[in-house]
Amino acid sequence: MRSVSVTDVSYTFEPGLTRQDPARLRALPGAPYPLGVLPDAGGVNVAVLAPGADAVEFCLLGSDTPAVGSGPGRGETRYRLPERCGGVWHGYIPGVRPGQRYGLRAHGPYDPARGLRYNPAKLLLDPYARRVEGTLTPVPAIFGYADGDPYGYAADGQDSAPFVPVGVVAALPSAAAGRSPAPSRRGGSGGLTAADPTANRPGTPWRDTVIYELHVRGFTRLHPALPPALRGTYAGLAHPAVLDHLTGLGITAVELLPVHAHVSEPALAERGLTNFWGYNTLGFFAPHPGYAATDDPVTEFRAMVAALHEAGIEVLLDVVYNHTAEQDERGPTLSMRGLDNTVYYRLEPTDPRRYRDVTGCGNTLNVTSPHVVRLVCDSLRYWMAEMGVDGFRFDLAAALARNPDGFDPDAPLLTAIGQDPVLAQAKLIAEPWDVGWGGYQVGAFPAPWAEWNDRFRATVRETWSGRAASAADLGYRITASSDLFEHGGRPPCSSVNFVTAHDGFTLADLVSYEHKHNEANLEDNRDGDNNNRSRNHGVEGPTDDPVVLERRRRVRRGMLATLLLSAGVPMLVAGDELGRSQHGNNNAYCQDNPVSWLAWPTTRADGSSGRSGGGWWPRRSERVTSTDVTDTDDGNGGNGGNGGNGGNGGNGGARGANGRRDRGSDGATPRSDSAGSMPPTTSDVPAPDPAGGDQDLFELVSCLLTLRRATPALRRGQFFHGGQSSETHRADMTWFLADGTQMSDADWNAPNPATVVAFIAGDSLAWLGPDGTPVTGDSLLLVLHPGEEDVDVHLPGAPWASRYDLVLDTAATDLSGLRAAVEDPRKPLATYPAGETLRASWSSVVVLRAHR
Amino acid sequence: MRSVSVTDVSYTFEPGLTRQDPARLRALPGAPYPLGVLPDAGGVNVAVLAPGADAVEFCLLGSDTPAVGSGPGRGETRYRLPERCGGVWHGYIPGVRPGQRYGLRAHGPYDPARGLRYNPAKLLLDPYARRVEGTLTPVPAIFGYADGDPYGYAADGQDSAPFVPVGVVAALPSAAAGRSPAPSRRGGSGGLTAADPTANRPGTPWRDTVIYELHVRGFTRLHPALPPALRGTYAGLAHPAVLDHLTGLGITAVELLPVHAHVSEPALAERGLTNFWGYNTLGFFAPHPGYAATDDPVTEFRAMVAALHEAGIEVLLDVVYNHTAEQDERGPTLSMRGLDNTVYYRLEPTDPRRYRDVTGCGNTLNVTSPHVVRLVCDSLRYWMAEMGVDGFRFDLAAALARNPDGFDPDAPLLTAIGQDPVLAQAKLIAEPWDVGWGGYQVGAFPAPWAEWNDRFRATVRETWSGRAASAADLGYRITASSDLFEHGGRPPCSSVNFVTAHDGFTLADLVSYEHKHNEANLEDNRDGDNNNRSRNHGVEGPTDDPVVLERRRRVRRGMLATLLLSAGVPMLVAGDELGRSQHGNNNAYCQDNPVSWLAWPTTRADGSSGRSGGGWWPRRSERVTSTDVTDTDDGNGGNGGNGGNGGNGGNGGARGANGRRDRGSDGATPRSDSAGSMPPTTSDVPAPDPAGGDQDLFELVSCLLTLRRATPALRRGQFFHGGQSSETHRADMTWFLADGTQMSDADWNAPNPATVVAFIAGDSLAWLGPDGTPVTGDSLLLVLHPGEEDVDVHLPGAPWASRYDLVLDTAATDLSGLRAAVEDPRKPLATYPAGETLRASWSSVVVLRAHR
Repeated sequence: MRSVSVTDVSYTFEPGLTRQDPARLRALPGAPYPLGVLPDAGGVNVAVLAPGADAVEFCLLGSDTPAVGSGPGRGETRYRLPERCGGVWHGYIPGVRPGQRYGLRAHGPYDPARGLRYNPAKLLLDPYARRVEGTLTPVPAIFGYADGDPYGYAADGQDSAPFVPVGVVAALPSAAAGRSPAPSRRGGSGGLTAADPTANRPGTPWRDTVIYELHVRGFTRLHPALPPALRGTYAGLAHPAVLDHLTGLGITAVELLPVHAHVSEPALAERGLTNFWGYNTLGFFAPHPGYAATDDPVTEFRAMVAALHEAGIEVLLDVVYNHTAEQDERGPTLSMRGLDNTVYYRLEPTDPRRYRDVTGCGNTLNVTSPHVVRLVCDSLRYWMAEMGVDGFRFDLAAALARNPDGFDPDAPLLTAIGQDPVLAQAKLIAEPWDVGWGGYQVGAFPAPWAEWNDRFRATVRETWSGRAASAADLGYRITASSDLFEHGGRPPCSSVNFVTAHDGFTLADLVSYEHKHNEANLEDNRDGDNNNRSRNHGVEGPTDDPVVLERRRRVRRGMLATLLLSAGVPMLVAGDELGRSQHGNNNAYCQDNPVSWLAWPTTRADGSSGRSGGGWWPRRSERVTSTDVTDTDDGNGGNGGNGGNGGNGGNGGARGANGRRDRGSDGATPRSDSAGSMPPTTSDVPAPDPAGGDQDLFELVSCLLTLRRATPALRRGQFFHGGQSSETHRADMTWFLADGTQMSDADWNAPNPATVVAFIAGDSLAWLGPDGTPVTGDSLLLVLHPGEEDVDVHLPGAPWASRYDLVLDTAATDLSGLRAAVEDPRKPLATYPAGETLRASWSSVVVLRAHR
Repeated sequence: MRSVSVTDVSYTFEPGLTRQDPARLRALPGAPYPLGVLPDAGGVNVAVLAPGADAVEFCLLGSDTPAVGSGPGRGETRYRLPERCGGVWHGYIPGVRPGQRYGLRAHGPYDPARGLRYNPAKLLLDPYARRVEGTLTPVPAIFGYADGDPYGYAADGQDSAPFVPVGVVAALPSAAAGRSPAPSRRGGSGGLTAADPTANRPGTPWRDTVIYELHVRGFTRLHPALPPALRGTYAGLAHPAVLDHLTGLGITAVELLPVHAHVSEPALAERGLTNFWGYNTLGFFAPHPGYAATDDPVTEFRAMVAALHEAGIEVLLDVVYNHTAEQDERGPTLSMRGLDNTVYYRLEPTDPRRYRDVTGCGNTLNVTSPHVVRLVCDSLRYWMAEMGVDGFRFDLAAALARNPDGFDPDAPLLTAIGQDPVLAQAKLIAEPWDVGWGGYQVGAFPAPWAEWNDRFRATVRETWSGRAASAADLGYRITASSDLFEHGGRPPCSSVNFVTAHDGFTLADLVSYEHKHNEANLEDNRDGDNNNRSRNHGVEGPTDDPVVLERRRRVRRGMLATLLLSAGVPMLVAGDELGRSQHGNNNAYCQDNPVSWLAWPTTRADGSSGRSGGGWWPRRSERVTSTDVTDTDDGNGGNGGNGGNGGNGGNGGARGANGRRDRGSDGATPRSDSAGSMPPTTSDVPAPDPAGGDQDLFELVSCLLTLRRATPALRRGQFFHGGQSSETHRADMTWFLADGTQMSDADWNAPNPATVVAFIAGDSLAWLGPDGTPVTGDSLLLVLHPGEEDVDVHLPGAPWASRYDLVLDTAATDLSGLRAAVEDPRKPLATYPAGETLRASWSSVVVLRAHR
């Protein structure tokens, strides 16, 4: 079967010929390296991996090219790539310039029974396209199979070109640097310049890292201080008001939900929904065009990264190399399926018509293939070296380490990543599972990988809902889970700790809902996880019952404190510090609307638009409504720098010497008008905080992170080992019951501990400073008290301490002294001699500084 | 077993402490990346992979450091590396500068039954050392085990430091560039400068590549035109006289036998021999110091590469990543065995005291380990990016692609190499076998790898000794072995064709010996291959029988012509063009003496020393004797540029416009005084050419390569497929019998063909030039006639040709018109109309240009 005859459109292929004017459209030989389309002064070199193809055509698209193709409404000029070397088809096309839209067509057998799905009627996206334009229209022409039968022998002959995203020729950013930024198509460019994001990396050590997971569009879509044109864009994320929020909070890295170019699944689009999260990648090299405020997503993305770097913030990308938007055999033919289905994807060995799916998304990229390893590594290097990012979170990473026999930490892709000089500088984070057999691999990744620690999530949620398995389990979790990660010399920062993530309940919903409420996803609430380990504390959803609200407030604070005081790397989800809710939706992947968008507080009680340049004021809870974010807003009003500073005492935007925002207290009152009703199943307004609008939550998080920065004992480079200091005769960590006795094995294994007291020594950290001297710092007594009754905590005496300073009590309603207490040892909230008792309020975390 | 107590020397290790003055010898934390020792202005960062070690010490060596160590005669200062991250021990040592000699000591269990062989009494070479000094002394102290028992529980406590090579701190060459070259320790530096060899790469396409395998020391050790101090060195290989020889011959790449720092096996050294070839690597990053004329091997090596590049010649390295000089469990503990035996080597799973050996050298590097993949790739990148080489020939490459189940073309190391942007520019050549089960893998490597094609060697040798399996077999071999290499889109240049290599008979010996004569190796002639497919043509070894000598002359020429006219990449062995002999030794790996050294002809019949700067004169056969190469010769006499030009008519050193030497004929006569005796079993004088001293051999090879360059049909980018040109109705290749009939299947499969006639069309090459137009050139009629009788060859008429021009007849004793015939289509040796017959002499190759 050497060629395919496709009905409707006569794409019959004669070897050596293609439908073009040979004199005018001559392709030169070019080079097989690098893959993709690389422009130089005279044209473009095109190199496409398609080992099984009989021929590959490079197709210029656009009204300025002669309409020799048949795509309705699209002129198309095709060049057969003249040379082939080791599976790579290549050629050089003179005269093609950056900005040119293009696609590929591949000729070869259509024979699903052999896994071959060539179909030249389908315009294919170059897997290496660095820019992507256009959208996927869910029409029959995007599918490669005829008659609705993906298992049959008939290929569909309709040209897919009008209905699919296409590539755009782009120079390598480093080569293009120095060009002035492309003009905005929506208004102001946000002051972006062609800055080089690789030149000002923060280089934050892992031990100092605090991750903040956010969605580029959802995070700023409703930000009142941003010009409307920048809301929901890369440029918006780089806006000073946004950067102030991030630096004020104290996080060190943003982890962006997928920014690789992606499309919505046709079935989802047919339901009128879109894939908001973006875990449905089409192009591993292109920034998603839907997040760009300008015509040049590449330059805009790089400027965003440079601006974040300038603010001291690293950029991590959530990357989805486990599957692609082509889905299973019933999915559309958009790119790799049409180039070489057998190379790029894992097919069922016994029935190559079907895909092996360990991702739940229809297909699995075949990372046992050296070609795919190269694709993934080239993509990673591109985002590091050209786009300036600092690391990656690998979605369903277990799928990337599967050989035919199962998970293998020495798998070729992990090996290739591990030996690469560029990627050696990257932060690598695995989501250490997939949905295939043997897919749960938490702790199994090799150094230097970090991993999402879902055991931390489970244990902390259980602890704060009175269902913890044991004190031991909690003890392992808050000390970076040495039981999971210590093998092979891995350090504590291998554990990325989190209580919430984009997937699942927000923190506000976690304390307000015991059941998911996903009706808006239009799957009759069948989708989403049913095992949330959540608690509504008496009422499902919003309420005005003050008892319920106080429980929610305390538990939420307790979980945040547990997260941010634990060893390992904490990860926050954007908006949890602002009481973000999704109305109980725990799977809002398809909600590109206020269900997902962060409802920023407005800056003024009167509801007028945002302050200029200074961001929002966290003590205010007034929220913008959807009418605030229409593009008819004054696009420059928030960006002109008129110097006004709102009515909040003038200190809202002031920055302390350490880059943190210096906040006072003000008289803002919580919004309460939304409590008491069950959540709507769909909503076009942001959800109010169902936990009651804790006005101090931002401040609490900011102060917890300040305490973390100030206390080396919270950022140890080595696991706790219990060894005693020869000087102080204290262990690096000691566990107590509330009554001051050290925990026994029986205590350690008893379920559902009400109180766990941990003494963390600051003088035995196994940590050398840059000058080679041991790093030391304060010792802390940490009281985790999820119990529902107040408790008296005995404060241990010698050799641990002679005196304790109270630094933090999460139950306190007045946090006005908190910042001073965490920043200045001379300003504790209270002081206790050792041997005394401290009354710990129900559902609280208390932190004391120990003095010898 | 957390520590080891070693007798004799008290290397007992206390956690956290080492034998040093803490105040004076403080190591700072440093960084775990990059591996190795990297100096900056203030000191060195040290990073060593040793996952299983309990501690690693960085040891400064030399008389200028305090003698806190115990090494006899060596002061030694030890720093415990203070930090550990994912198996990498690291630290920063202030004040250490380039030039500092250093080693490592690793503490941990000595427990061979678990594969653990830590022994801090043994000074270990940093696997990433970029410079190595010193030699290996075969004394008991170099072994890690006590009592001569490598399987027991007792570690040897004698300090190995005085007896082992050590590392020398070196800056990265790119960082050090611009420094003036180090002063020579032996005399002139050969005019070397700190040139950048990465800046002037020839970038020769594979299709144009002709490889010349040589040994850095053996190639110039006896070169009369070189100053004695430069003979046998990197600088010597860069000498203009040597470059003139290479460019005059017409090769495009030198392939250097191992230049990684290596040592002789202790058992070999005890026999008084050395490992001359060097397939016994100790340091994968260090140029072998024994080949350096200066004190700075790194700078000298780079200058050599730059000089070769300047002459248009690429540099390929023969790299030995399959095993190391530590040999099997009975071998010395020199480096990786002492850092982490279980990580770096493949051990027998059922008995980790022993090594899995698929290399015949005692051990096998464990390239299934990501750590070892990183080591190999880091080494390859270093030689490419810093040392400027252009590619690699991987010794026993099948061992590099073995997973536990056997050979795997998708093995992690090959995958990692295949995706690397630096290595993507390298020429990669596999020796596609090892000595383990399933180790023969010719043809199994993935694109873009080329492979040594031993089937070519076998078939061409058999063909020219009257024992060819079939015309088909010969046909496949001379057309680049599509039966082996065409899968997966691999091109003809995947086949590296050769008749001889460093391993086995030289070409002169191949036609003069039917049996190996390896007595000089002191293994009673048991070593070396017994299946040489050689023929002595009547007498074993040298003879003055003119019949025998004429047979040898013709067969040698026939094999050279077959090699250099075949599709694929030809590889010559240095000296075969000069009649180099090894006295019948076919395994001269341990002969660092005139058995191996190339006996260059002197430039004058009177035997005086070499001409200045102009190299040797190829028509002379007078050879230097061993007294010519002592270091007492005037070290500058050949290098001072005195302008003398010998007595050869002044055209010996003239260069044509194309860089080739323009030679005339002269009256040189062959040397014949050596014929007639059996070879000596040992020799301290170079062996004479046992095939009679063919004075035209250099000229023949040079003209064959000129013909190859001038004829695109000999350098096709695609395999022959027999397709007919629509214009000429000729196939790309047509096979004939001598009588002019096309070969039938029966002819094709008949054994031992006397005559094979191939018409190679020059107008259907499936090859586009840089401007996109098809490349065309002359069509050739190639007559391969190994038959021992003269034969009449019918010259095919239409559609093949109407007329033929004779270009080459290897049997001719007068080659005076040959160069003009290959260079100028107007100057054929003779012309024949199609349909006539041509008398082909016995044992000859005849080439005709076809005209339509």
